[in-house]
Amino acid sequence: MELKKQTIIRAQKRIKNLIHNTPILTSESINNISGAKLYFKCENFQKIGAFKMRGALNAVMSHSSKDIKKGFVTHSSGNHAQAVALSSKIMKTNAYIVMPKSAPKIKINAVKGYGADITFCENNENARKESCQKLIQKTGANFIHPYDNNRVIAGQATCSKEIYDISPKLNLDYILCPVGGGGLASGTILSTNFFSPKTKVVLAEPKNASDAYISFNEKKLIPVKNPKTIADGLMTSLSNKTFDIILGGAEKIITVSEEEIVFSMKLIWERMKIICEPSCAVPLAAVLKTKKTFKNKNVGIILTGGNVDLKNLPF
Amino acid sequence: MELKKQTIIRAQKRIKNLIHNTPILTSESINNISGAKLYFKCENFQKIGAFKMRGALNAVMSHSSKDIKKGFVTHSSGNHAQAVALSSKIMKTNAYIVMPKSAPKIKINAVKGYGADITFCENNENARKESCQKLIQKTGANFIHPYDNNRVIAGQATCSKEIYDISPKLNLDYILCPVGGGGLASGTILSTNFFSPKTKVVLAEPKNASDAYISFNEKKLIPVKNPKTIADGLMTSLSNKTFDIILGGAEKIITVSEEEIVFSMKLIWERMKIICEPSCAVPLAAVLKTKKTFKNKNVGIILTGGNVDLKNLPF
Repeated sequence: MELKKQTIIRAQKRIKNLIHNTPILTSESINNISGAKLYFKCENFQKIGAFKMRGALNAVMSHSSKDIKKGFVTHSSGNHAQAVALSSKIMKTNAYIVMPKSAPKIKINAVKGYGADITFCENNENARKESCQKLIQKTGANFIHPYDNNRVIAGQATCSKEIYDISPKLNLDYILCPVGGGGLASGTILSTNFFSPKTKVVLAEPKNASDAYISFNEKKLIPVKNPKTIADGLMTSLSNKTFDIILGGAEKIITVSEEEIVFSMKLIWERMKIICEPSCAVPLAAVLKTKKTFKNKNVGIILTGGNVDLKNLPF
Repeated sequence: MELKKQTIIRAQKRIKNLIHNTPILTSESINNISGAKLYFKCENFQKIGAFKMRGALNAVMSHSSKDIKKGFVTHSSGNHAQAVALSSKIMKTNAYIVMPKSAPKIKINAVKGYGADITFCENNENARKESCQKLIQKTGANFIHPYDNNRVIAGQATCSKEIYDISPKLNLDYILCPVGGGGLASGTILSTNFFSPKTKVVLAEPKNASDAYISFNEKKLIPVKNPKTIADGLMTSLSNKTFDIILGGAEKIITVSEEEIVFSMKLIWERMKIICEPSCAVPLAAVLKTKKTFKNKNVGIILTGGNVDLKNLPF
């Protein structure tokens, strides 16, 4: 499958009745602070509390009924796990989720809540792969990678497409999203290219997990080693596929410090009265850091998710 | 001024371009937990973060230009203080706010942020009244009581009117709001009576500040003494005016425990990904406590505000 305009249009048709067309919110006071006109696409209100539902559901639903019956496998300790679990539940099939033993209880319970089978493994790449492989051999289920997968990318692309669909158009000068493995970033670049080519895509990344920034500027894929950031959704590295799309289509990548992430997260909570996870605050931190670039511009920001442990807040 | 249908319609016309027609959100998972169909009117997204903006702005704008120039006085350590401060700022006049010395710094700073003059006093009824009286004598400014004021009540009534205005109609069987001094409760009763007479108004109150519950059932106004509840917006007692309206128009009053309030507040944060203050969670707590009453019913809930100290959460 190639990622064409029609692929994204079809993905949107496939999933739209099962996901939320999430609201776009504005905040006068954050506009005043930033000097830009900000439009927040609230994926924290999405099913399972994050945009990941789009990609997982599109990937699951793209399979033949025969394949769907076999179920789905993935490894994730985060939102993708919940997304594959709920998507499988919707399609009345099994989900097999590989999670590190060290995953937070709150996330394990969320996945269990959607009726998925959980297999625990050691917290390293090899153990994850091995566990997935065993499950696939045993069950015949289909593997859904969190981002290195065209169907997942096409699903994530529907998020910015919804922004470009609304009428009257917002005429965005920029759209920002965070970059981790690059699934949402790739989807946003493709969608923008097809449906709003004048809008520039800027990616935002924690300084402490800046593989995309380094790879983009070196024009060579350089994975991150042992990232440590509060933005737990952004610790993964790009794949060849997502790196190619980002290299070809991103305007630039801005990195931000941990303090800048926490400041922006608190600003969103206090001024907008909505709950977002740290990863989600990275693009606003990027805007506040480089105000000049965005001054008086129309700027879309994808608020990626709202799954946060209320007992363990950074402020 | 008498509180007629036209009074509320005029109030809505007066303030509508300066406030938000706040969104009505739903949550599948909270519907499943409660067994009811809940429609949350999100006044936590209102200007100053609470419904109080409606009443204060309507009261301020109802004055003659000559009176507006003299400015406005009130006593409050909460959302009404911010509402009078911002309303006065909008009308380019002075606000004089009397606050107890012990008021949280976060609230003092919010009021200062709107450019109001703050006068500190001891934390008792007499000191507050005396300070207000002195300010009125000195400045000629107009006093705006937080709830014992028809213009304030008419402003609060616009909140539920917005629910009844939407098309297609929600056909609410019930509407719930919390009761403290009774301004919002009175406005909701009047508005419901005029614009959706089939809807029953149920009020919700903390057990630890249950003057409305006791007064309603004894049919006699009995103020609360030394209330202690996490729902800091609901510690005031009814006035004669609000008691009369509530006695005449409320279906019933349900009281809830502190634990029930915190449980419901957490549920709203976790499932809806929005920030609400403890007072705001009291009606949901009432629904969860008396599920039978609300089973399969269409129930409107006014989420009153989202001003909460993030450094001091109850969970």
